[in-house]
Amino acid sequence: MTAHLQDAALSPLQTARELASEFAHSAVERDERGGTPIAQRDALRASGLLALSIPVQFGGLGASWRETFEVVREFARVDSSIAHVFGFHHLMLATVRLFARPEQWQPWFELTARKNWFWGNALNPLDTRTTVRNFAGWREFSGKKSFCSGASDSQMLIASAVDESAGGKLLIAAIPSSRTGITLHDDWDNMGQRQTDSGSATFERVRVEESDLLLDPGPLSTPFACLRPLIAQLHFANIFLGIAQGAFEEARQYTLTETRPWFKSGATQNHQDPYVLGHYGDFWVGLESARLLVEHAAGLLDKAWAKGSRLSSAERGQVAVAIATAKVAANRHGLEVCSKVFEVTGARATHTAVGLDRHWRNLRTQSLHDPLDYKLQELGDWALNQNLPTPTFYS
Amino acid sequence: MTAHLQDAALSPLQTARELASEFAHSAVERDERGGTPIAQRDALRASGLLALSIPVQFGGLGASWRETFEVVREFARVDSSIAHVFGFHHLMLATVRLFARPEQWQPWFELTARKNWFWGNALNPLDTRTTVRNFAGWREFSGKKSFCSGASDSQMLIASAVDESAGGKLLIAAIPSSRTGITLHDDWDNMGQRQTDSGSATFERVRVEESDLLLDPGPLSTPFACLRPLIAQLHFANIFLGIAQGAFEEARQYTLTETRPWFKSGATQNHQDPYVLGHYGDFWVGLESARLLVEHAAGLLDKAWAKGSRLSSAERGQVAVAIATAKVAANRHGLEVCSKVFEVTGARATHTAVGLDRHWRNLRTQSLHDPLDYKLQELGDWALNQNLPTPTFYS
Amino acid sequence: MTAHLQDAALSPLQTARELASEFAHSAVERDERGGTPIAQRDALRASGLLALSIPVQFGGLGASWRETFEVVREFARVDSSIAHVFGFHHLMLATVRLFARPEQWQPWFELTARKNWFWGNALNPLDTRTTVRNFAGWREFSGKKSFCSGASDSQMLIASAVDESAGGKLLIAAIPSSRTGITLHDDWDNMGQRQTDSGSATFERVRVEESDLLLDPGPLSTPFACLRPLIAQLHFANIFLGIAQGAFEEARQYTLTETRPWFKSGATQNHQDPYVLGHYGDFWVGLESARLLVEHAAGLLDKAWAKGSRLSSAERGQVAVAIATAKVAANRHGLEVCSKVFEVTGARATHTAVGLDRHWRNLRTQSLHDPLDYKLQELGDWALNQNLPTPTFYS
Amino acid sequence: MTAHLQDAALSPLQTARELASEFAHSAVERDERGGTPIAQRDALRASGLLALSIPVQFGGLGASWRETFEVVREFARVDSSIAHVFGFHHLMLATVRLFARPEQWQPWFELTARKNWFWGNALNPLDTRTTVRNFAGWREFSGKKSFCSGASDSQMLIASAVDESAGGKLLIAAIPSSRTGITLHDDWDNMGQRQTDSGSATFERVRVEESDLLLDPGPLSTPFACLRPLIAQLHFANIFLGIAQGAFEEARQYTLTETRPWFKSGATQNHQDPYVLGHYGDFWVGLESARLLVEHAAGLLDKAWAKGSRLSSAERGQVAVAIATAKVAANRHGLEVCSKVFEVTGARATHTAVGLDRHWRNLRTQSLHDPLDYKLQELGDWALNQNLPTPTFYS
Repeated sequence: MTAHLQDAALSPLQTARELASEFAHSAVERDERGGTPIAQRDALRASGLLALSIPVQFGGLGASWRETFEVVREFARVDSSIAHVFGFHHLMLATVRLFARPEQWQPWFELTARKNWFWGNALNPLDTRTTVRNFAGWREFSGKKSFCSGASDSQMLIASAVDESAGGKLLIAAIPSSRTGITLHDDWDNMGQRQTDSGSATFERVRVEESDLLLDPGPLSTPFACLRPLIAQLHFANIFLGIAQGAFEEARQYTLTETRPWFKSGATQNHQDPYVLGHYGDFWVGLESARLLVEHAAGLLDKAWAKGSRLSSAERGQVAVAIATAKVAANRHGLEVCSKVFEVTGARATHTAVGLDRHWRNLRTQSLHDPLDYKLQELGDWALNQNLPTPTFYS
Repeated sequence: MTAHLQDAALSPLQTARELASEFAHSAVERDERGGTPIAQRDALRASGLLALSIPVQFGGLGASWRETFEVVREFARVDSSIAHVFGFHHLMLATVRLFARPEQWQPWFELTARKNWFWGNALNPLDTRTTVRNFAGWREFSGKKSFCSGASDSQMLIASAVDESAGGKLLIAAIPSSRTGITLHDDWDNMGQRQTDSGSATFERVRVEESDLLLDPGPLSTPFACLRPLIAQLHFANIFLGIAQGAFEEARQYTLTETRPWFKSGATQNHQDPYVLGHYGDFWVGLESARLLVEHAAGLLDKAWAKGSRLSSAERGQVAVAIATAKVAANRHGLEVCSKVFEVTGARATHTAVGLDRHWRNLRTQSLHDPLDYKLQELGDWALNQNLPTPTFYS
Repeated sequence: MTAHLQDAALSPLQTARELASEFAHSAVERDERGGTPIAQRDALRASGLLALSIPVQFGGLGASWRETFEVVREFARVDSSIAHVFGFHHLMLATVRLFARPEQWQPWFELTARKNWFWGNALNPLDTRTTVRNFAGWREFSGKKSFCSGASDSQMLIASAVDESAGGKLLIAAIPSSRTGITLHDDWDNMGQRQTDSGSATFERVRVEESDLLLDPGPLSTPFACLRPLIAQLHFANIFLGIAQGAFEEARQYTLTETRPWFKSGATQNHQDPYVLGHYGDFWVGLESARLLVEHAAGLLDKAWAKGSRLSSAERGQVAVAIATAKVAANRHGLEVCSKVFEVTGARATHTAVGLDRHWRNLRTQSLHDPLDYKLQELGDWALNQNLPTPTFYS
Repeated sequence: MTAHLQDAALSPLQTARELASEFAHSAVERDERGGTPIAQRDALRASGLLALSIPVQFGGLGASWRETFEVVREFARVDSSIAHVFGFHHLMLATVRLFARPEQWQPWFELTARKNWFWGNALNPLDTRTTVRNFAGWREFSGKKSFCSGASDSQMLIASAVDESAGGKLLIAAIPSSRTGITLHDDWDNMGQRQTDSGSATFERVRVEESDLLLDPGPLSTPFACLRPLIAQLHFANIFLGIAQGAFEEARQYTLTETRPWFKSGATQNHQDPYVLGHYGDFWVGLESARLLVEHAAGLLDKAWAKGSRLSSAERGQVAVAIATAKVAANRHGLEVCSKVFEVTGARATHTAVGLDRHWRNLRTQSLHDPLDYKLQELGDWALNQNLPTPTFYS
C-alpha cells in the first residue's frame, strides 16, 4: 500500500475513500483471520489521516468532528474494525485535549501529527482491576484491563486505574505503549470487530509520572470536558451507520448482478420484484433517518466543541440528547438492515467469500458497548421529565 | 376570537401559536361534532396567515415552505383538521403559481392576500367522474368529485375535469366557489380529520372560462410544475409529524399530572418507572427522526422552489426522494406514537373528554391519502435502481 | 329481538352466532351512542346464555371455559362491549364459586340460571375509596368505586371494600344491585368499549350481611381460588382476539367488494395486489398465533378448574404463564391488525358508517386494564428465573 | 461416541437428548471448522435414529412426524447442521414413500433401517443444469446440481434431472451415492449451517435405471404425494424453532451466571433488571407462539399422512396453510431471538468460544431456502381470497 494524502492534492475524504477501497479487497479475508491489521494501520499512518482531527497549528489537518466522522463512516462501510480503531485514536486525542493541560496535550498533538503516532485505549472505567500505588512524585499502575481497542501496534495509550487511597477515584494517564510493565495480550477473538484488538492488557508496576496524568481539568470535570463520552458515543453511532451503509451497498450490487426473480414473482427481473423494492425502500428510510440524526448531532458537537470552556451544562446536555438519539436510531436501523439484506440477496449470498454476514457480526458486537435500554431510558427521562443526561463515561 | 398577526408585532409562528392555543380549547369538542369550523376559519382569515406563503410583493408574508409547514405542524399538534385545510389552501396557491401564467396567478395572489380568501380543493385526479364539454371560448364541467377538502366555506376552488375529447386529458381550473352549478355536499362524516370537509361536490354545467384554466405551463408539465405533488406530500408529512408531536405532548402532561405507578413498579412516581421512561425514549427517537427528515426535505424544497424554471428533472427527483422518505417515516413513527401513548397514560386517559384518541384517528385517516406500500416501492426503486420517482399527482 | 337457545335445538355457539349477527346490525350506531344496550342485554337474558358456564346440575348449560370464551370471541367480533359484560358476568359467577362456600354460590347459580340474572362488577381492588364499617353481624360499605363494568342493568353485583380495622383487608361481597345505598352513575363516556357501562358507583352505607361476603375460602386464598384473576386475564385475551378477528373479517369484505387497485399496481384487482396480499398474510399469522395461544391456555384452565381444591400452586402457575403469554400476543397482534386494516381498505373505509375504527378504539381501551410491560416482566421472570407468577388480582 | 438407542431402553427422544448433549461439546468448534461431521453422523447411525420415521413393519421406530420433528428440534438447539441433514434424511425417505411404488420404497425402507443408511439430497428443482438422456430401458443424468445438503457421507441420494425430450419434465431418482459418475464437491463454505455439506454435485453420465425413478405416482402427482414439500417446509420451521430455543437457553445460562447489572440499573442482580426481564418476556412469547404453531401443524400433517391416498386437495391445502403459518412465525421470532439475545448477555458474550452468534448465522442461512415474502403472499391469498396454496416444491 502507498501513502495517499501526502503524495497528492487529495482531500482527507478522498484519501479515506482510496484507502477504504484498498482495505475492501482484503476485508473479508482479514475478518476471518482476526488479529492486528498491520499493513492497513501503516497505510493509515502513511496517509496522514491520523492527524485528521488535530488543529492545523499543531501540524494536523484541522478537521471538524463532522469531517472526522465522515471518514470513520467511509472506513466502516468496508472495514469497521479499522473504522473503530481510527475513530478511537481521535477519541484518545480528544481525551487529552479535554482532560489535560495545554502544556501536556499540545506536544502530544504535535508529535502525533509529525510522527503519525497511533493512540490506543486502555481506559474501560467499568473494569476496576487496575489500581494505583502512590509514590512521591510518581505512581504505579498495576492490574488488568479489558476491552483495550487499538492498543496493539499503538505508540500511545490512554490508561486508567483506580486510586483506592483517594476514595476510588479514577486516574487517567497518557503513556507510551512501550513503557515497561505493559503487556497487551492479543486475546481478542470475538464474533465481530475482529481486527480491533479489543483484548486485555496487564499493567505490572507501570510507572506513571505526574505529567502523564490527565488531572487538570481532569475527567468529566467541566461541561467541556464532559464532551469526551459524547464523542465516544457519536463515534459508535457513526460506526453503526457506516456498517449499515456498507451492507446496503454490497447487497445492492449483489441484487443487481447475482440474483434472479423468485419463480412466483411477476417481475422478469429481481430488481423489479415488488417485495425486493419494498425492502430496499425500508432500508433507505432507515439509513436516511440515521444519517440525518448522526449529521445533526455532529453539527451540534462541533458547535459545542468551538465553545470550549464557555460551554454550559445545558448546552452540553442538548448535544448529549442529540447524540443519544442518533446512536439509538443507528443501532436499530443498522441491525435491521444488516439482517434483512439477506432477504434481497438470497441463499447464495451466504457464501463465506461474499462476507455479507460480517456487517451484522460487526454491528451486533460493537453495539453492545453499553446497553440500548439505558440509552432509551436516558432519552425518556429527557423527553418526559426534561432531565438532561447526567455525564458519565457512557452518557 | 380576535385577529392576531395584523394587530401586533407577532411573527407568523407566534401568531400561529396563539391561534393554536385558542383552537385547542374546543378541539376535542369540535372533533366530536365534525362539520365546518367557521369560527376558526374566520380567525385564520383575520390573522393574515392565509397570505403566509404569498410573496411580499403580492401583499403576502413571503414565508418559505419550511416556515409555512412549521405553521402547519403548529396547528396539527392540537387540530389537524385546521392544519390540513390551512396547508391545502397554500397548496392550491402553489398550484396556480406552478400551472398557470403570471397574468393569472398574480391577481389571484393579490386578491387572496388582500381579501383573505380561503382556497379549497376539488381536484382529486383519481376521481374521473367530472367531465368537460367544450364550447367556443369556454367549457362546462359536469359531474361528481370526492375528497374535496376545504371546499366548504372557501372563496376559491381548484377543480379538475376529464376532457374526453382530448384523450382523457385532465383540465384544472381555479374558479370562485360560489359559481353557479357548484354544490358542496357537506357529507364528510369520517372517523378522523372530521373538520376538513373532505366530502363530495357536484358540478352541474359549471361554466369555466379559458382564463380560469391552468394550461400554461399546465399540470406536471415542467420539473418546476412537478413540485406541486411534492408540496402536497410534504404537507402530509408535516401533518403526520404535528399530530404525533401533539399526542406526545398531551400524553406527557397526562403522565406527569394524572398517573400513578403500577403497583408492581419499583418506582415511587410513574414518571420514573423504567418502562414508562423506555416508551418516552422510543417516542423521542421516532419524533426526532421524523422531524429531521421533514425539515431536511423542506430545505430542499425551498431550494428547488427558488430555482423556478431552471429546476432540472434530476434536481426535482432528489426533492421527491427526500419528501417521500420524510413522509414514510412520519407516517410510521406517528402511528406508533399515537397508539402507544395510551401505554404511558393508562385506562383513565381513554375518557372522551381527554380526547387522546383523536390523534390516532386523525393520523390514520390522513395517512390513507395514498398507499404507504407504493411510496416504499418508489423509494426502493431509487435505492436499488437509482430510478428517481416519476412525477404523478402522488409522487 | 327474540330468544334463541330456549326456542330451538341450537347449540350455545350457534345461539351466540345468531345473536352476534343481530347485534352486528346496530353495533356501529350503538358504539357512537354509548350507554347501556338494554335490548341486547335482554336478548342475552332471553337466550339462556347467561347460564352458559353454570353447571348443568344448577340449571346451567355446563360449558367449559373454552366454550364460554368461544362465545365471548363470537360477540367480540362484532360488539366487544357486549362481549366484555357477558364474559365478566361469567367471571363474577366464577368469583363466588371460588371465594365463597357452596351454601352461598349454589343458590346464586340456581337463581341466575332460573331468572337469567345478569351480574356486574364493582370490585376494582386498586380503587380503595370504598371502606367498611363493622357492626355486630353485619357491615356497611361506603365510598366510591371506578370501572364498574356491567353494573348498570344488572341484578347482582360483586363489590369490594377495604376494612381498615383489619389492616386494610379487602372484603368482597355479592349483593343485589338494587340494594339501598348503591348508586350507579352512568358516567362511562370513553373512546372505546362504549357500551360496557364501566363508569363509577357510589356506596352510601350499603348494608352487607355476613352471608353476602366471600370469606370462605376467601379471595386469592388457595391455588384454586387464585384461578379467578386468570379467568379475568384470559377473558381479556379472548376479547382482544375476537376484536381483531372481527376487524380482519370486516376489512376482508371491504377489500373484496369496495376497493380498486392503486394505479401503480400491476394487479388488475386489488385482492391480487402483492402488498395487499402481504398484509393479509401478516394478519393471518398474527391471528393464528394468538388463536392457538388462547385456545391452549383455555385448555389448561379447564384442566386446572377440574382439579378444584387439589390444584397445586405450581399447576396454577403454569396456567398463569400460558394465559399471560396468550394475553400479550393477542394484545400485540390485535392492535397491529386493528390499525393496519386501513392499509388494505383505504381512505373511503374511514367513513363513520363503516365503523372500522371502533375495533382499534375498543381494543386499545380494553388493553389498558393492566400494563403490558408488567405482564412481559412477569413472563420474563418465568422465562429467565423460572419464577411462576405470584397471584394477585392481575396475575 | 457410543450408540445409544439400541443399547438401552431409551426412548427416541431421550436418545436424541443424549446425542445432542454430546454434539453440544464440539458444536462451536465444528461450526468454525465446517466440513462433514463424520463422528456425529456415525453416532446418528449407531443410535438407530436414522430409522426414526420408518414404520415398525419395515424395521423402523415408527415415529410420527410430530415425534420426528421433536428430535429435529432437539438437535437444532445445539447443532442445526446435524438437525438439518437428519431431518432431510427423513424427508428423502418420505420422498420415495410418496413418489414411488411400494415395491420400490419398501426395500429401501428395510435396508435403511437395517443398515443405518443415511440419505442425502440432490434434488433442487430450481437448478435445471442436470439433464436426462434417454436410452432403451435406462437413462443418464448429466450436469451440475447445487445445494446438495447431506449428500456427502451418504449411502443414498435423491437426485433430479430435467428431461428436455419430455417438455422439461422433472425426473427424480433414488440412487446409491457411490454410483459411478457422481462427484460431490465438498464446496459448501457458507456463513451458517456449516456442517450441512450443502455444496454442489456433478453428474457425469450417471446411469439411472427405471427402477431408480420415482414415477408412480410421481412427484406432486396426488394430494398425498403433495405432502412432500410440506414436510420439507415444516422441517424448516422446526429447525428455526429449535435454533431459537437453543439460543434462548444458552443466553439464559449466560445471563444467570456471567453477567452483572448495568451500573445505572436499580437491580442488584442482572436477572432482576427490568429491561432484561422484559427481553426475556418477549423471547418467551415469541418462542411459545412458534412452538404452538409448529406443533399444531405437525398434528395436522400426521392426520393427513394417515389418510394416505384418501387425502383430498382441500385437506392437503389446510395442512399447507398451517405449515406456512408456522414457518413464517418461527422464521421471524427465531431471527428476533437470535439477534436480541446479545442485549441480555452483553459484549463479553461475543467471544468466539461462547459461539452465541452461530444461532443467528444458522437461522439466517437456513431461512433463505425460499423467500418469506412469497410465503406471506401465499398466506394472504388464503386469508383474503380463500385460495389454498398451489402445490409446488416450495408450497
